[in-house]
Amino acid sequence: MATLCKPAVSVPEHVITMEDTLALARSLHADHPQLPLALRLISNTGVAKRHIVQPIEQTLQHPGFEDRNVLYEAEAKARVPAVINSALDHAELRPTDIDLIVYVSCTGFMMPSLTAWLINEMDFPSHTRQLPIAQLGCAAGGAAINRAHDFCQAYPEANVLIVACEFCSLCYQPTDLGVGSLLSNGLFGDAVAAAVVRGEGGTGISLERNASHLVPDTTDWIAYSVRATGFHFLLDKRVPTTMEPLAPALRTIADQHGWDATGLDFYIIHAGGPRILDDLSRFLEVPPDAFRFSRGTLTEYGNIASAVVLDAVRRLFDEGAVTDGAQGIIAGFGPGITAEMALGRWTAGGPGIVPELMEPHMLGAQGTNLRSAAGSMR
Amino acid sequence: MATLCKPAVSVPEHVITMEDTLALARSLHADHPQLPLALRLISNTGVAKRHIVQPIEQTLQHPGFEDRNVLYEAEAKARVPAVINSALDHAELRPTDIDLIVYVSCTGFMMPSLTAWLINEMDFPSHTRQLPIAQLGCAAGGAAINRAHDFCQAYPEANVLIVACEFCSLCYQPTDLGVGSLLSNGLFGDAVAAAVVRGEGGTGISLERNASHLVPDTTDWIAYSVRATGFHFLLDKRVPTTMEPLAPALRTIADQHGWDATGLDFYIIHAGGPRILDDLSRFLEVPPDAFRFSRGTLTEYGNIASAVVLDAVRRLFDEGAVTDGAQGIIAGFGPGITAEMALGRWTAGGPGIVPELMEPHMLGAQGTNLRSAAGSMR
Repeated sequence: MATLCKPAVSVPEHVITMEDTLALARSLHADHPQLPLALRLISNTGVAKRHIVQPIEQTLQHPGFEDRNVLYEAEAKARVPAVINSALDHAELRPTDIDLIVYVSCTGFMMPSLTAWLINEMDFPSHTRQLPIAQLGCAAGGAAINRAHDFCQAYPEANVLIVACEFCSLCYQPTDLGVGSLLSNGLFGDAVAAAVVRGEGGTGISLERNASHLVPDTTDWIAYSVRATGFHFLLDKRVPTTMEPLAPALRTIADQHGWDATGLDFYIIHAGGPRILDDLSRFLEVPPDAFRFSRGTLTEYGNIASAVVLDAVRRLFDEGAVTDGAQGIIAGFGPGITAEMALGRWTAGGPGIVPELMEPHMLGAQGTNLRSAAGSMR
Repeated sequence: MATLCKPAVSVPEHVITMEDTLALARSLHADHPQLPLALRLISNTGVAKRHIVQPIEQTLQHPGFEDRNVLYEAEAKARVPAVINSALDHAELRPTDIDLIVYVSCTGFMMPSLTAWLINEMDFPSHTRQLPIAQLGCAAGGAAINRAHDFCQAYPEANVLIVACEFCSLCYQPTDLGVGSLLSNGLFGDAVAAAVVRGEGGTGISLERNASHLVPDTTDWIAYSVRATGFHFLLDKRVPTTMEPLAPALRTIADQHGWDATGLDFYIIHAGGPRILDDLSRFLEVPPDAFRFSRGTLTEYGNIASAVVLDAVRRLFDEGAVTDGAQGIIAGFGPGITAEMALGRWTAGGPGIVPELMEPHMLGAQGTNLRSAAGSMR
């Protein structure tokens, strides 16, 4: 049984509000023929504020792909370890308990990945497996949870650390002037998130099934153009229409598990934008409030790419209202267009578990948390 | 039981021989103070020829990172599908039998990854999971095999397609003039390789255990510098010394499995360069001939990055001398510095299996190959 423990999330200290964003768009693009449309789209995002790694004045400059990437690396090294430590604390584990690090990030590129530096600097064992994913974009948060689930399915005593490090502000491209780019400039934010998937024990979402779904022939709807100036984010105006083909994929995974996608107890949905959430709640016939965790992320942090689902899960924990055995779904959406979906059940872990809600095959793992019993807590 | 079936490998039509390489180095770097050293290092690689996606005249030009990446995408789309079809044929499976595509490539960058295009173009099911890995360099071939193994461990009926697409010639940087760069220019080649890991049935290497090992504090020994001109490959002169700390890691995984790393029946080792192979055979106390598959790859294709281990496995199949139950190791090495290692046993599959060599827990899977029995062969 793989349990997604409470994520830790950190957002940078520099804040840009919706008002700042609109004022900037007006001043930078005063003569843009589609400025009114861009302003309306930005206003509709519902993003009250975002957090970014540099002051806005520096963010608006483009010092070159190389400098941007150097900054990505420096900021990642400065910000990621504390978030990992917090996630390990939440899971009551130490670095030596971790068997695999899944590091997802599409806003900078390093080879070797930050995983190698983390193993060296944070005393993870040298046998820790490394799985860096750079090319799944916003869907990578869901993919990280799902590959961690698979790994614990293969090795039931294993623990997986997931890290999502997204500095979207470092992908700002001042020369990209399409409406999609202007909207993106008002939508994306920076954040670092981490969480542990424990093979045994732990409080959180006990992962039971995962699936992926590609919407056919949409590879160019969300994409990077790779240029001398770095990654240029391309956002097609058809993207908001993708909930119509994706809602059935969410229904299918629920059906396969004997659950009803319309009547789940919690929903963790990628907050790509407001229409993604509005449309999906409509197509799934769930009340808009069911997506309140994702809406909280969007409002307070913006679209923080692969970190969205982890931050939304963190809000689920913080609300503290979910009960043992509650059924939920996690869905990350990103380029492809790809959905990475997971079904899980809330488990308070250890003595708090409600046995009658468990499937018979799960009972064997209950009450035996060898690692945390043997290891000292942080 | 996850079985690595026969890989398919394709190398491009443009050939550059050792003589061509040495002549080019002499003419391009006539006044380089360390030219004699560079020529000696290149001569020592033992790379008789390499295959590259463009004629050498075009390869030597640098049209910019963007054009290079556009070319990467076009060449990948032109060359990868045929290799995948051949790998599927070897495994006697069809695209609809594949549950996960692991696509590894460090010589171009696409988001979405080629996996999305492949699913659309080659009629893989839209629920096929995508795992693109760009940041494990030459170790990614081993990592792909190991993550495929893990996936089949989690879902015993699953089949995983592995693709390694490496066009190292597109990372040629004419302004990089260090001796490490001059050596790299004479060492790396282009290739596409693919293989299927079948959860049930299949002839090939039945994967039994895998492990990863990071050599501490070597993150900058093999690395990319990410610049406006693309990925600049940095190869430290200390890299050839890494077999001393890595040989014990290979011994450890063998020991953990009750095997003897010195007395295995076959060795599939990353052919990073001649000294990697020489040193490792010395430290493991195995005859140099034990690494003949890797040496074949190095001699005929050069270091083809993550595709090396798959090509070496292909040579093991082609030799046709391995017998049922033979014990072997696969080891990919790359940035980190990371080793991705696997232990496996040759299995002829189906009726050819020798029951007395099987562990009792494996017997349940023998003779029941539901998928290939139900599906039509290609």
